[in-house]
Amino acid sequence: MKIVLIGSGNVASHLAEALLAANHNIIQVWSKHFENAVLLSSTINSQAVKYLSEIDVDADLYVLAIKDDAIEDVALQLKNVRGMIAHTSGAVPLHIFEGNFERYGVFYPLQTFSKAKKVNFLDIPLCLEANDIAGMQLLKNIARGISNTVVEINTEKRAILHLSAVFACNFVNHFYALADEILRENELNFNLIKPLIKETAEKIQTAKPISVQTGPAIRHDEKTIAKHESLLGKHPQLVEIYKMVSDSIKKTR
Amino acid sequence: MKIVLIGSGNVASHLAEALLAANHNIIQVWSKHFENAVLLSSTINSQAVKYLSEIDVDADLYVLAIKDDAIEDVALQLKNVRGMIAHTSGAVPLHIFEGNFERYGVFYPLQTFSKAKKVNFLDIPLCLEANDIAGMQLLKNIARGISNTVVEINTEKRAILHLSAVFACNFVNHFYALADEILRENELNFNLIKPLIKETAEKIQTAKPISVQTGPAIRHDEKTIAKHESLLGKHPQLVEIYKMVSDSIKKTR
Repeated sequence: MKIVLIGSGNVASHLAEALLAANHNIIQVWSKHFENAVLLSSTINSQAVKYLSEIDVDADLYVLAIKDDAIEDVALQLKNVRGMIAHTSGAVPLHIFEGNFERYGVFYPLQTFSKAKKVNFLDIPLCLEANDIAGMQLLKNIARGISNTVVEINTEKRAILHLSAVFACNFVNHFYALADEILRENELNFNLIKPLIKETAEKIQTAKPISVQTGPAIRHDEKTIAKHESLLGKHPQLVEIYKMVSDSIKKTR
Repeated sequence: MKIVLIGSGNVASHLAEALLAANHNIIQVWSKHFENAVLLSSTINSQAVKYLSEIDVDADLYVLAIKDDAIEDVALQLKNVRGMIAHTSGAVPLHIFEGNFERYGVFYPLQTFSKAKKVNFLDIPLCLEANDIAGMQLLKNIARGISNTVVEINTEKRAILHLSAVFACNFVNHFYALADEILRENELNFNLIKPLIKETAEKIQTAKPISVQTGPAIRHDEKTIAKHESLLGKHPQLVEIYKMVSDSIKKTR
Protein backbone atom coordinates (compact mmCIF):
# COMPACT_ATOMS: atom_id res chain seq x y z
CA MET A 1 0.00 0.00 0.00
CA LYS A 2 1.26 3.52 -0.76
CA ILE A 3 0.95 5.55 2.41
CA VAL A 4 1.66 9.20 3.21
CA LEU A 5 2.43 9.95 6.83
CA ILE A 6 1.45 13.32 8.25
CA GLY A 7 3.26 13.82 11.53
CA SER A 8 6.58 12.77 13.03
CA GLY A 9 5.87 12.42 16.73
CA ASN A 10 5.72 9.29 18.88
CA VAL A 11 2.61 7.78 17.27
CA ALA A 12 3.85 8.56 13.75
CA SER A 13 7.31 7.11 14.39
CA HIS A 14 6.15 3.86 15.96
CA LEU A 15 3.39 3.39 13.42
CA ALA A 16 5.79 4.08 10.54
CA GLU A 17 8.10 1.36 11.75
CA ALA A 18 5.26 -1.16 12.00
CA LEU A 19 3.93 -0.25 8.55
CA LEU A 20 7.37 -0.59 7.04
CA ALA A 21 7.84 -3.99 8.67
CA ALA A 22 4.54 -5.05 7.06
CA ASN A 23 5.99 -4.09 3.67
CA HIS A 24 3.98 -0.95 3.12
CA ASN A 25 5.54 1.87 1.18
CA ILE A 26 5.54 5.12 3.11
CA ILE A 27 6.14 7.38 0.16
CA GLN A 28 6.22 10.72 2.00
CA VAL A 29 6.45 12.16 5.48
CA TRP A 30 5.33 15.67 6.37
CA SER A 31 5.79 17.40 9.71
CA LYS A 32 5.13 20.87 11.04
CA HIS A 33 8.85 20.95 11.68
CA PHE A 34 10.54 19.95 8.45
CA GLU A 35 13.71 18.75 10.21
CA ASN A 36 11.65 16.15 12.08
CA ALA A 37 10.16 14.90 8.82
CA VAL A 38 13.70 14.61 7.45
CA LEU A 39 14.81 12.67 10.50
CA LEU A 40 11.89 10.23 10.46
CA SER A 41 11.89 9.73 6.68
CA SER A 42 15.57 8.81 6.76
CA THR A 43 14.87 5.88 9.10
CA ILE A 44 11.96 4.51 7.06
CA ASN A 45 13.32 4.94 3.57
CA SER A 46 10.83 7.68 2.77
CA GLN A 47 10.85 11.23 1.44
CA ALA A 48 10.39 14.27 3.66
CA VAL A 49 8.19 17.05 2.27
CA LYS A 50 8.27 20.61 3.48
CA TYR A 51 4.87 21.87 2.30
CA LEU A 52 1.51 20.13 2.35
CA SER A 53 1.08 21.28 -1.25
CA GLU A 54 3.88 18.91 -2.23
CA ILE A 55 2.00 15.85 -0.98
CA ASP A 56 1.48 13.18 -3.64
CA VAL A 57 -2.27 13.06 -4.31
CA ASP A 58 -2.22 9.44 -5.51
CA ALA A 59 -1.36 7.50 -2.35
CA ASP A 60 -3.78 4.87 -1.04
CA LEU A 61 -3.89 6.26 2.47
CA TYR A 62 -3.03 9.49 4.26
CA VAL A 63 -2.43 8.97 7.96
CA LEU A 64 -2.69 12.07 10.14
CA ALA A 65 -0.75 11.29 13.32
CA ILE A 66 -0.67 14.84 14.66
CA LYS A 67 -2.02 16.80 17.64
CA ASP A 68 -5.81 16.63 18.00
CA ASP A 69 -6.18 20.39 17.56
CA ALA A 70 -4.29 20.36 14.27
CA ILE A 71 -6.15 17.52 12.54
CA GLU A 72 -9.00 19.56 11.08
CA ASP A 73 -6.75 22.37 9.80
CA VAL A 74 -4.23 20.07 8.19
CA ALA A 75 -6.98 17.90 6.67
CA LEU A 76 -8.46 20.96 4.97
CA GLN A 77 -5.14 21.47 3.23
CA LEU A 78 -5.26 17.93 1.89
CA LYS A 79 -8.70 18.20 0.28
CA ASN A 80 -7.34 17.45 -3.17
CA VAL A 81 -5.90 13.98 -2.36
CA ARG A 82 -7.57 11.05 -4.07
CA GLY A 83 -6.83 8.31 -1.50
CA MET A 84 -8.42 7.63 1.85
CA ILE A 85 -7.62 9.93 4.77
CA ALA A 86 -7.51 8.82 8.41
CA HIS A 87 -6.43 10.23 11.74
CA THR A 88 -5.02 8.33 14.73
CA SER A 89 -6.72 10.20 17.56
CA GLY A 90 -8.85 8.75 20.34
CA ALA A 91 -10.76 11.97 20.89
CA VAL A 92 -11.44 13.48 17.45
CA PRO A 93 -14.75 12.45 15.80
CA LEU A 94 -14.89 10.84 12.39
CA HIS A 95 -17.18 13.53 11.03
CA ILE A 96 -14.51 16.23 10.96
CA PHE A 97 -13.57 14.84 7.52
CA GLU A 98 -17.18 14.94 6.28
CA GLY A 99 -17.90 16.93 3.14
CA ASN A 100 -14.25 17.32 2.18
CA PHE A 101 -13.26 13.72 1.44
CA GLU A 102 -14.86 10.81 -0.31
CA ARG A 103 -13.30 8.15 1.88
CA TYR A 104 -12.14 8.75 5.40
CA GLY A 105 -11.62 7.00 8.68
CA VAL A 106 -9.89 6.62 12.02
CA PHE A 107 -6.95 4.38 12.82
CA TYR A 108 -6.55 4.66 16.58
CA PRO A 109 -3.79 2.65 18.26
CA LEU A 110 -4.79 2.29 21.91
CA GLN A 111 -1.37 2.61 23.44
CA THR A 112 0.98 5.14 25.04
CA PHE A 113 4.06 5.80 22.97
CA SER A 114 7.32 7.30 24.07
CA LYS A 115 10.39 8.20 22.05
CA ALA A 116 12.87 6.00 23.84
CA LYS A 117 10.91 2.78 24.21
CA LYS A 118 10.15 0.20 21.52
CA VAL A 119 6.66 -1.26 21.53
CA ASN A 120 5.39 -4.47 20.01
CA PHE A 121 2.66 -3.30 17.64
CA LEU A 122 1.19 -6.82 17.50
CA ASP A 123 -0.08 -6.31 21.07
CA ILE A 124 -1.66 -2.91 20.43
CA PRO A 125 -5.44 -2.84 19.85
CA LEU A 126 -6.21 -0.89 16.70
CA CYS A 127 -9.62 0.80 16.80
CA LEU A 128 -10.98 1.49 13.35
CA GLU A 129 -13.79 3.62 12.01
CA ALA A 130 -14.61 4.51 8.40
CA ASN A 131 -17.34 6.26 6.45
CA ASP A 132 -17.96 3.31 4.14
CA ILE A 133 -17.39 -0.42 3.83
CA ALA A 134 -14.53 -0.19 1.36
CA GLY A 135 -12.75 2.29 3.62
CA MET A 136 -13.16 -0.03 6.59
CA GLN A 137 -11.82 -2.90 4.49
CA LEU A 138 -8.76 -0.89 3.52
CA LEU A 139 -8.02 0.04 7.15
CA LYS A 140 -8.62 -3.54 8.29
CA ASN A 141 -6.22 -4.92 5.72
CA ILE A 142 -3.49 -2.65 6.99
CA ALA A 143 -4.36 -3.07 10.69
CA ARG A 144 -4.43 -6.87 10.57
CA GLY A 145 -0.96 -6.86 9.09
CA ILE A 146 0.50 -5.08 12.09
CA SER A 147 -1.69 -6.00 15.08
CA ASN A 148 -3.41 -9.05 16.57
CA THR A 149 -6.31 -6.98 17.90
CA VAL A 150 -8.35 -5.05 15.38
CA VAL A 151 -11.77 -3.71 16.35
CA GLU A 152 -14.42 -1.53 14.75
CA ILE A 153 -15.29 1.25 17.18
CA ASN A 154 -17.50 4.24 16.46
CA THR A 155 -16.74 7.81 17.50
CA GLU A 156 -18.83 7.67 20.71
CA LYS A 157 -17.27 4.44 21.97
CA ARG A 158 -13.82 5.61 20.96
CA ALA A 159 -14.31 8.69 23.16
CA ILE A 160 -15.20 6.38 26.06
CA LEU A 161 -12.13 4.24 25.40
CA HIS A 162 -10.01 7.36 25.38
CA LEU A 163 -11.58 8.56 28.64
CA SER A 164 -10.93 5.20 30.30
CA ALA A 165 -7.35 5.36 29.05
CA VAL A 166 -6.93 8.71 30.80
CA PHE A 167 -7.75 6.99 34.10
CA ALA A 168 -5.80 3.79 33.42
CA CYS A 169 -2.73 5.41 31.89
CA ASN A 170 -2.41 9.20 32.28
CA PHE A 171 -3.77 9.43 35.82
CA VAL A 172 -1.95 6.26 36.81
CA ASN A 173 1.33 7.67 35.54
CA HIS A 174 0.69 10.85 37.50
CA PHE A 175 0.27 8.77 40.65
CA TYR A 176 3.61 7.12 39.88
CA ALA A 177 5.02 10.65 39.64
CA LEU A 178 3.44 11.67 42.96
CA ALA A 179 4.85 8.56 44.62
CA ASP A 180 8.24 9.43 43.16
CA GLU A 181 7.95 12.96 44.55
CA ILE A 182 6.94 11.77 48.02
CA LEU A 183 9.84 9.31 48.08
CA ARG A 184 12.44 11.79 46.84
CA GLU A 185 11.40 14.36 49.45
CA ASN A 186 12.20 11.73 52.04
CA GLU A 187 15.42 10.55 50.43
CA LEU A 188 13.94 7.23 49.43
CA ASN A 189 14.58 5.61 46.08
CA PHE A 190 11.73 5.19 43.58
CA ASN A 191 13.35 1.91 42.53
CA LEU A 192 12.00 0.35 45.72
CA ILE A 193 8.41 0.53 44.49
CA LYS A 194 9.03 -0.49 40.88
CA PRO A 195 8.34 -4.20 41.51
CA LEU A 196 5.08 -3.19 43.21
CA ILE A 197 4.06 -1.06 40.24
CA LYS A 198 4.82 -3.89 37.85
CA GLU A 199 2.89 -6.45 39.88
CA THR A 200 -0.11 -4.12 40.25
CA ALA A 201 -0.35 -3.84 36.47
CA GLU A 202 0.24 -7.56 35.93
CA LYS A 203 -2.42 -8.63 38.40
CA ILE A 204 -5.26 -7.12 36.40
CA GLN A 205 -4.17 -8.85 33.21
CA THR A 206 -6.01 -11.88 34.60
CA ALA A 207 -8.09 -10.60 37.55
CA LYS A 208 -10.86 -8.01 37.68
CA PRO A 209 -9.33 -4.87 39.26
CA ILE A 210 -12.15 -4.54 41.76
CA SER A 211 -11.48 -8.07 43.03
CA VAL A 212 -7.80 -7.39 43.81
CA GLN A 213 -8.16 -3.98 45.49
CA THR A 214 -5.89 -3.72 48.54
CA GLY A 215 -4.81 -0.93 50.88
CA PRO A 216 -6.19 1.02 53.85
CA ALA A 217 -9.24 2.48 52.07
CA ILE A 218 -10.82 -0.83 51.03
CA ARG A 219 -10.20 -2.14 54.58
CA HIS A 220 -11.75 1.06 55.97
CA ASP A 221 -8.59 1.39 58.05
CA GLU A 222 -9.22 4.95 59.25
CA LYS A 223 -6.16 5.02 61.50
CA THR A 224 -3.76 4.50 58.61
CA ILE A 225 -5.73 6.88 56.38
CA ALA A 226 -5.48 9.62 59.03
CA LYS A 227 -1.76 8.97 59.43
CA HIS A 228 -1.16 9.18 55.68
CA GLU A 229 -3.10 12.44 55.49
CA SER A 230 -0.92 13.90 58.22
CA LEU A 231 2.25 12.71 56.45
CA LEU A 232 1.04 14.58 53.35
CA GLY A 233 0.43 17.69 55.43
CA LYS A 234 2.91 19.84 53.51
CA HIS A 235 0.93 19.26 50.32
CA PRO A 236 -2.73 20.24 50.75
CA GLN A 237 -3.54 19.23 47.18
CA LEU A 238 -2.19 15.73 47.78
CA VAL A 239 -4.27 15.47 50.95
CA GLU A 240 -7.34 16.32 48.89
CA ILE A 241 -6.49 13.72 46.27
CA TYR A 242 -5.79 11.14 48.97
CA LYS A 243 -9.15 11.81 50.63
CA MET A 244 -11.11 11.81 47.41
CA VAL A 245 -9.64 8.62 45.96
CA SER A 246 -9.90 6.85 49.34
CA ASP A 247 -13.58 7.86 49.55
CA SER A 248 -14.13 6.53 46.06
CA ILE A 249 -12.48 3.22 47.01
CA LYS A 250 -14.62 2.97 50.16
CA LYS A 251 -17.73 3.34 48.00
CA THR A 252 -16.54 0.57 45.72
CA ARG A 253 -19.57 -1.33 44.58
CA MET B 1 16.19 -21.26 61.13
CA LYS B 2 13.17 -22.30 63.19
CA ILE B 3 10.32 -19.94 62.37
CA VAL B 4 6.78 -19.62 63.69
CA LEU B 5 4.30 -18.00 61.36
CA ILE B 6 1.44 -16.01 62.84
CA GLY B 7 -1.15 -15.43 60.12
CA SER B 8 -2.38 -17.28 57.07
CA GLY B 9 -3.38 -14.53 54.63
CA ASN B 10 -1.73 -13.48 51.38
CA VAL B 11 1.49 -12.15 52.90
CA ALA B 12 1.83 -15.15 55.23
CA SER B 13 1.22 -17.67 52.46
CA HIS B 14 3.62 -16.17 49.94
CA LEU B 15 6.28 -15.56 52.58
CA ALA B 16 5.93 -19.11 53.91
CA GLU B 17 6.57 -20.52 50.48
CA ALA B 18 9.70 -18.40 50.02
CA LEU B 19 11.02 -19.30 53.48
CA LEU B 20 10.45 -22.98 52.83
CA ALA B 21 12.26 -22.74 49.49
CA ALA B 22 15.20 -21.20 51.37
CA ASN B 23 15.27 -24.28 53.63
CA HIS B 24 13.88 -22.65 56.73
CA ASN B 25 11.80 -24.73 59.05
CA ILE B 26 8.36 -23.24 59.69
CA ILE B 27 7.58 -25.22 62.78
CA GLN B 28 4.12 -23.80 63.50
CA VAL B 29 1.37 -21.75 61.89
CA TRP B 30 -1.31 -19.94 63.84
CA SER B 31 -4.29 -18.13 62.41
CA LYS B 32 -7.35 -16.41 63.85
CA HIS B 33 -9.29 -18.98 61.88
CA PHE B 34 -7.83 -22.37 62.77
CA GLU B 35 -9.00 -23.96 59.52
CA ASN B 36 -6.84 -21.48 57.56
CA ALA B 37 -3.81 -22.40 59.66
CA VAL B 38 -4.53 -26.05 58.92
CA LEU B 39 -4.78 -25.32 55.22
CA LEU B 40 -1.55 -23.33 55.03
CA SER B 41 0.45 -25.62 57.30
CA SER B 42 -0.43 -28.60 55.13
CA THR B 43 1.20 -26.97 52.10
CA ILE B 44 4.41 -26.03 53.90
CA ASN B 45 4.96 -29.14 55.95
CA SER B 46 4.22 -27.35 59.21
CA GLN B 47 1.95 -27.75 62.21
CA ALA B 48 -1.22 -25.74 62.72
CA VAL B 49 -1.89 -24.51 66.24
CA LYS B 50 -5.26 -23.43 67.53
CA TYR B 51 -4.29 -21.31 70.53
CA LEU B 52 -1.49 -18.80 70.89
CA SER B 53 -0.67 -20.47 74.21
CA GLU B 54 0.43 -23.56 72.25
CA ILE B 55 3.13 -21.64 70.38
CA ASP B 56 6.61 -23.11 70.82
CA VAL B 57 8.62 -20.54 72.82
CA ASP B 58 11.99 -21.69 71.45
CA ALA B 59 11.79 -20.72 67.78
CA ASP B 60 14.39 -18.31 66.35
CA LEU B 61 11.82 -15.98 64.82
CA TYR B 62 8.11 -15.25 65.18
CA VAL B 63 6.69 -13.57 62.08
CA LEU B 64 3.41 -11.72 62.55
CA ALA B 65 1.82 -11.45 59.12
CA ILE B 66 -1.59 -10.32 60.28
CA LYS B 67 -3.84 -7.26 60.01
CA ASP B 68 -2.23 -4.04 61.28
CA ASP B 69 -4.86 -3.58 63.97
CA ALA B 70 -4.26 -7.06 65.39
CA ILE B 71 -0.46 -6.93 65.67
CA GLU B 72 -0.21 -5.31 69.10
CA ASP B 73 -2.87 -7.54 70.69
CA VAL B 74 -1.45 -10.77 69.32
CA ALA B 75 2.10 -9.75 70.24
CA LEU B 76 1.05 -9.23 73.85
CA GLN B 77 -0.05 -12.86 73.93
CA LEU B 78 3.40 -13.94 72.77
CA LYS B 79 5.34 -12.14 75.51
CA ASN B 80 6.84 -15.36 76.82
CA VAL B 81 8.60 -16.41 73.60
CA ARG B 82 12.40 -16.42 73.72
CA GLY B 83 13.16 -15.78 70.02
CA MET B 84 12.95 -12.59 68.00
CA ILE B 85 9.52 -11.24 67.05
CA ALA B 86 8.82 -9.28 63.85
CA HIS B 87 5.80 -8.00 61.97
CA THR B 88 5.44 -7.53 58.22
CA SER B 89 3.47 -4.29 58.12
CA GLY B 90 4.36 -1.09 56.29
CA ALA B 91 2.39 1.10 58.64
CA VAL B 92 2.95 -0.25 62.16
CA PRO B 93 5.89 1.29 64.10
CA LEU B 94 8.70 -0.82 65.51
CA HIS B 95 8.13 0.51 69.03
CA ILE B 96 4.85 -1.38 69.54
CA PHE B 97 7.03 -4.32 70.64
CA GLU B 98 9.03 -2.20 73.09
CA GLY B 99 9.09 -3.28 76.72
CA ASN B 100 7.62 -6.71 76.06
CA PHE B 101 10.37 -8.33 73.99
CA GLU B 102 14.12 -8.41 74.11
CA ARG B 103 14.66 -8.65 70.37
CA TYR B 104 12.14 -7.39 67.83
CA GLY B 105 11.92 -6.05 64.34
CA VAL B 106 10.06 -5.47 61.11
CA PHE B 107 10.22 -7.59 57.98
CA TYR B 108 8.21 -5.63 55.42
CA PRO B 109 7.91 -7.04 51.90
CA LEU B 110 7.07 -4.10 49.63
CA GLN B 111 4.68 -5.88 47.33
CA THR B 112 0.99 -6.49 46.73
CA PHE B 113 0.01 -10.10 47.22
CA SER B 114 -3.05 -11.88 45.96
CA LYS B 115 -4.20 -15.41 46.56
CA ALA B 116 -4.30 -16.56 42.99
CA LYS B 117 -1.08 -15.13 41.65
CA LYS B 118 2.43 -16.42 42.28
CA VAL B 119 5.10 -13.80 42.89
CA ASN B 120 8.84 -14.08 42.55
CA PHE B 121 10.11 -13.20 46.02
CA LEU B 122 13.60 -12.50 44.65
CA ASP B 123 12.23 -9.30 43.06
CA ILE B 124 10.50 -8.05 46.20
CA PRO B 125 12.29 -5.39 48.25
CA LEU B 126 12.43 -6.42 51.88
CA CYS B 127 12.53 -3.48 54.28
CA LEU B 128 14.02 -4.38 57.62
CA GLU B 129 14.12 -2.71 61.01
CA ALA B 130 15.32 -4.12 64.33
CA ASN B 131 15.92 -2.93 67.87
CA ASP B 132 19.53 -4.14 67.94
CA ILE B 133 22.38 -5.17 65.68
CA ALA B 134 22.03 -8.90 66.29
CA GLY B 135 18.32 -8.69 65.45
CA MET B 136 19.06 -6.85 62.23
CA GLN B 137 21.64 -9.48 61.38
CA LEU B 138 19.14 -12.27 61.92
CA LEU B 139 16.54 -10.60 59.69
CA LYS B 140 19.17 -9.84 57.05
CA ASN B 141 20.31 -13.44 56.95
CA ILE B 142 16.79 -14.60 56.26
CA ALA B 143 15.93 -11.74 53.88
CA ARG B 144 19.02 -12.18 51.71
CA GLY B 145 18.16 -15.82 51.25
CA ILE B 146 14.83 -14.99 49.65
CA SER B 147 15.23 -11.57 48.00
CA ASN B 148 17.75 -9.65 45.90
CA THR B 149 16.78 -6.33 47.47
CA VAL B 150 17.22 -5.98 51.21
CA VAL B 151 17.23 -2.54 52.81
CA GLU B 152 17.31 -1.15 56.33
CA ILE B 153 14.43 1.30 56.71
CA ASN B 154 13.34 2.96 59.94
CA THR B 155 9.72 3.37 61.02
CA GLU B 156 9.37 6.92 59.65
CA LYS B 157 10.73 6.08 56.20
CA ARG B 158 8.74 2.87 56.12
CA ALA B 159 5.57 4.90 56.67
CA ILE B 160 6.55 7.09 53.71
CA LEU B 161 7.21 4.01 51.57
CA HIS B 162 3.83 2.66 52.54
CA LEU B 163 2.17 5.98 51.70
CA SER B 164 3.84 6.10 48.30
CA ALA B 165 2.70 2.52 47.72
CA VAL B 166 -0.89 3.60 48.35
CA PHE B 167 -0.57 6.03 45.43
CA ALA B 168 1.40 3.71 43.16
CA CYS B 169 -0.55 0.54 43.86
CA ASN B 170 -3.87 0.93 45.71
CA PHE B 171 -4.97 4.16 44.02
CA VAL B 172 -3.64 2.95 40.68
CA ASN B 173 -5.66 -0.26 40.99
CA HIS B 174 -8.74 1.77 41.84
CA PHE B 175 -8.25 3.75 38.63
CA TYR B 176 -8.05 0.47 36.74
CA ALA B 177 -11.36 -0.42 38.41
CA LEU B 178 -12.91 2.94 37.44
CA ALA B 179 -11.74 2.47 33.85
CA ASP B 180 -13.28 -1.00 33.90
CA GLU B 181 -16.55 0.45 35.19
CA ILE B 182 -16.65 3.20 32.55
CA LEU B 183 -15.97 0.66 29.82
CA ARG B 184 -18.54 -1.86 31.02
CA GLU B 185 -21.24 0.80 31.23
CA ASN B 186 -20.61 1.42 27.56
CA GLU B 187 -20.37 -2.22 26.57
CA LEU B 188 -16.67 -2.02 25.91
CA ASN B 189 -14.22 -4.70 26.94
CA PHE B 190 -11.60 -3.98 29.62
CA ASN B 191 -9.23 -6.26 27.66
CA LEU B 192 -8.79 -3.45 25.15
CA ILE B 193 -6.85 -1.32 27.62
CA LYS B 194 -4.77 -4.08 29.19
CA PRO B 195 -1.79 -3.58 26.86
CA LEU B 196 -1.92 0.14 27.69
CA ILE B 197 -1.89 -0.57 31.42
CA LYS B 198 1.05 -2.92 31.02
CA GLU B 199 3.05 -0.47 28.94
CA THR B 200 2.33 2.40 31.36
CA ALA B 201 3.84 0.37 34.20
CA GLU B 202 6.76 -0.84 32.10
CA LYS B 203 7.69 2.64 30.91
CA ILE B 204 8.57 3.86 34.37
CA GLN B 205 10.85 0.91 35.04
CA THR B 206 13.46 2.87 33.09
CA ALA B 207 12.08 6.43 32.74
CA LYS B 208 11.16 8.98 35.38
CA PRO B 209 7.33 9.06 35.52
CA ILE B 210 7.21 12.82 35.23
CA SER B 211 9.18 12.66 31.98
CA VAL B 212 6.72 10.28 30.29
CA GLN B 213 3.46 11.94 31.33
CA THR B 214 0.98 12.01 28.45
CA GLY B 215 -2.71 12.87 28.05
CA PRO B 216 -4.95 15.91 27.81
CA ALA B 217 -4.02 17.46 31.18
CA ILE B 218 -0.28 17.72 30.58
CA ARG B 219 -1.01 19.20 27.13
CA HIS B 220 -3.48 21.63 28.75
CA ASP B 221 -5.99 20.39 26.18
CA GLU B 222 -9.06 22.00 27.77
CA LYS B 223 -11.39 20.93 24.96
CA THR B 224 -10.78 17.22 25.60
CA ILE B 225 -10.87 17.73 29.37
CA ALA B 226 -14.28 19.40 29.10
CA LYS B 227 -15.53 16.62 26.85
CA HIS B 228 -14.37 13.94 29.27
CA GLU B 229 -16.05 15.71 32.17
CA SER B 230 -19.30 15.76 30.26
CA LEU B 231 -18.96 12.06 29.39
CA LEU B 232 -18.61 11.38 33.13
CA GLY B 233 -21.72 13.46 33.83
CA LYS B 234 -23.67 10.59 35.37
CA HIS B 235 -20.99 10.17 38.03
CA PRO B 236 -20.39 13.44 39.90
CA GLN B 237 -17.69 11.85 42.07
CA LEU B 238 -15.75 10.74 38.99
CA VAL B 239 -16.01 14.26 37.55
CA GLU B 240 -14.48 15.58 40.78
CA ILE B 241 -11.66 13.04 40.64
CA TYR B 242 -11.07 13.80 36.97
CA LYS B 243 -10.87 17.55 37.68
CA MET B 244 -8.63 17.18 40.71
CA VAL B 245 -6.12 14.80 39.16
CA SER B 246 -6.05 16.83 35.94
CA ASP B 247 -5.36 19.98 37.96
CA SER B 248 -2.56 18.20 39.77
CA ILE B 249 -1.05 17.09 36.44
CA LYS B 250 -1.26 20.64 35.07
CA LYS B 251 0.69 21.88 38.07
CA THR B 252 3.36 19.25 37.49
CA ARG B 253 6.64 20.72 38.49
